[in-house]
Amino acid sequence: VSKLIEPRTLRGFRDYPPELMIPRERLMEAARKTFRSYGFAPIDTPAIELTEILLAKVEDGAEIHKQLYRFKDAGDRDVALRFDLTVPLARFVSQHFTTLGMPFRRYHLGTVWRGESPQAGRYREFMQCDFDTIGTLSPAADTEIALVIHDLLIALGFERFRIHVNNRQVLNGLLTGLGLADKTTALLRSLDKLAKIGRDGVSDEMMREAGVTAEQALQVIALAETRGSNAEVLEQLRERFADSDAGRQGVAVLEGMCDTFRTAGIPEERLQVDLAICRGLDYYTGTVYETFLSDLPSIGSICSGGRYDNLTGRYTKQALPGVGASLGLDRLLAAMEQLKLLEGTTTPAPVLITQFVPERIGDYQRVARMLRAEGIGCEVYPDAKKLGAQFQYAEKRGFKAALIAGPDEFARGEWKIKNLSERSEQSVTEASLATELRVLLGNNA
Amino acid sequence: VSKLIEPRTLRGFRDYPPELMIPRERLMEAARKTFRSYGFAPIDTPAIELTEILLAKVEDGAEIHKQLYRFKDAGDRDVALRFDLTVPLARFVSQHFTTLGMPFRRYHLGTVWRGESPQAGRYREFMQCDFDTIGTLSPAADTEIALVIHDLLIALGFERFRIHVNNRQVLNGLLTGLGLADKTTALLRSLDKLAKIGRDGVSDEMMREAGVTAEQALQVIALAETRGSNAEVLEQLRERFADSDAGRQGVAVLEGMCDTFRTAGIPEERLQVDLAICRGLDYYTGTVYETFLSDLPSIGSICSGGRYDNLTGRYTKQALPGVGASLGLDRLLAAMEQLKLLEGTTTPAPVLITQFVPERIGDYQRVARMLRAEGIGCEVYPDAKKLGAQFQYAEKRGFKAALIAGPDEFARGEWKIKNLSERSEQSVTEASLATELRVLLGNNA
Repeated sequence: VSKLIEPRTLRGFRDYPPELMIPRERLMEAARKTFRSYGFAPIDTPAIELTEILLAKVEDGAEIHKQLYRFKDAGDRDVALRFDLTVPLARFVSQHFTTLGMPFRRYHLGTVWRGESPQAGRYREFMQCDFDTIGTLSPAADTEIALVIHDLLIALGFERFRIHVNNRQVLNGLLTGLGLADKTTALLRSLDKLAKIGRDGVSDEMMREAGVTAEQALQVIALAETRGSNAEVLEQLRERFADSDAGRQGVAVLEGMCDTFRTAGIPEERLQVDLAICRGLDYYTGTVYETFLSDLPSIGSICSGGRYDNLTGRYTKQALPGVGASLGLDRLLAAMEQLKLLEGTTTPAPVLITQFVPERIGDYQRVARMLRAEGIGCEVYPDAKKLGAQFQYAEKRGFKAALIAGPDEFARGEWKIKNLSERSEQSVTEASLATELRVLLGNNA
Repeated sequence: VSKLIEPRTLRGFRDYPPELMIPRERLMEAARKTFRSYGFAPIDTPAIELTEILLAKVEDGAEIHKQLYRFKDAGDRDVALRFDLTVPLARFVSQHFTTLGMPFRRYHLGTVWRGESPQAGRYREFMQCDFDTIGTLSPAADTEIALVIHDLLIALGFERFRIHVNNRQVLNGLLTGLGLADKTTALLRSLDKLAKIGRDGVSDEMMREAGVTAEQALQVIALAETRGSNAEVLEQLRERFADSDAGRQGVAVLEGMCDTFRTAGIPEERLQVDLAICRGLDYYTGTVYETFLSDLPSIGSICSGGRYDNLTGRYTKQALPGVGASLGLDRLLAAMEQLKLLEGTTTPAPVLITQFVPERIGDYQRVARMLRAEGIGCEVYPDAKKLGAQFQYAEKRGFKAALIAGPDEFARGEWKIKNLSERSEQSVTEASLATELRVLLGNNA
């Protein structure tokens, strides 16, 4: 007999057992359904691509170089595992834009890999969930992304959340007004940390990294902290941009978004124009989005994105502007767990049919299929073990109800239903089984 | 400006654009729903594992060594991409069996990689869809796998198919009866090719590879070709195994399966005891399954599997027997396309709301959300282009209906519905829009 090999996963990687995978899959299905209802279509791209393709837009010293899972394939090609879904999207639309037709709305749920040093909650393999509209400059597309974020969170059971929106052209206009146009990149990179490191931290960094004075830093921060209703903030911006075309355009996009949300009857507090939102990434050129849960703001934005106008520039001369966002699956799952929105998701099927008379296995499966056809998932215990052992299994797994039929029940055409949370029992006819179970299960059917 | 990089995928890899991905996702969702209704729970495992783990059960000269995507990670560990979902399952249950609890039913839809030479229809990256019950020797579990295959195909819209079942113990018993017990492996490997290379081919190979006489080869083939109803074949087997415990046990498993299918009211022709089915893989020890579409038998088995009793032996001393099967997603999709079961799946949402009055974008989105809430997916065209261009887009994409509202319609509170396949139009009030669309869309809502 050869020596046993210890079963284990690599550091930074994890298995998803049912208790992690059931809510994850439920979340992904709700997301897919929402995306599709807006006309976003699913795509997938290879996990492995040429390194040259993946790094086309990455600067030489960038962190991602060290994090890449990069190797030579059997044909000695320099390849790597994808580290996000944005680069593959850019490659995909550049390659296929003539057959795809524009505008093109897509969503993509896919695994990506980054060899980061594993810390608490950081993994080297994780799922991304992106949705984007390519091929249109229309502000209606920017608004729609915010609507998708909204309806997605509603579909997942959230009610108290706020989508923060801003516009890079507005920010650029404000910085130009302060005579700081040439320092935009460094200033916005610092400003992006306002929630994390606070006013003093940002001010220090702006002085150090962008070479501005303390006064200038405070002016930028004060602008970003402009407070008020959307109407008030937009009114201030309109006044300020009386002379700036780019600034006015940015304000108009934000106005359009607020108007559509109002016309669609969405509560005002769910969308907020927030001049402090700027996103760290360089490639955003217009609208930017971040989304916070009102009951759990500390976990940060759970859905972020923006408009970018030159994502595909390294692969094609065709202009393919886009706007989109990315749902933070793992962050959202952690939030749902903390807010107890994951209750009732411990078993894939809520009902266990126990096995008491092995010769009647055909009847156990017959009734199981009858219930499944009624939309009630149920599992048949495979062994004729003692009922006590089967109930123990049912409780450990978290089933809501167990069904029992022994010789007496079969003789009478009845089934015993055991309510596993209330530990109560009732006997019902086979014909009324589905109805009674539906009452017992409520929303967990 | 730096030189453009040609956007392309690696040889043997492919993108999944919407027209491939929409039916694929629909199929995967139907599969997940069926698995869950039986109490199978989803799991996932890392794409990258230690090579030592992945190759634990692989013989030295095996083909898979050459096909493995294998490399050194940043920590100089010898790692590889998973080449199937069976090895990760064995590792997973060995590692977690105490917390999982037995019996454990899982399904796993996941990507695997094999560096095969790319031929027609063969890719180096593909999706597998496996479902297994671990931790029980009960024949009820074997029966259940056949039931899942059955209900899965029904859920996907198939009616004419046949699940072929056999049992390795029965085959072993038959070969022992012919005095060929020591040649089982080689004989079954040849027999597995009966449908592909025919009687003469199999006979030649048996003589060459197993060293049997022509007469012995013909005896084995004749046994495998035993025809008749399930009851007749089982009756013959019972007589033949009057003296063999192992053989009788195998027959009893097949009998139990036929009994349950009958009790559950499933048409007799959907399950067939077929002594010619033996599956090529060495690790099967009991029941084996293959599934054929009656209207397209030539594409081969679309769902296959079996019982295995020692899958985890390299990782743990704990006995963890299992039984399961794997759905051939890509083969099934090809079949569904040929049988025209994929109609009506060209757009994620069936309705396009055209944009005629840009200032009314809020109303277009308001009505779109109202329809989505009624379960009718609809896309809002993002640009106020000429209606002709928007209809062209709608036809190219394959929308079923387009909605139009201009100043006249807004004044009257009406919408124009354009049936895009019949090229007819009607005007309806906003209140009756959902009802009328449901009539137009039928099953495509």
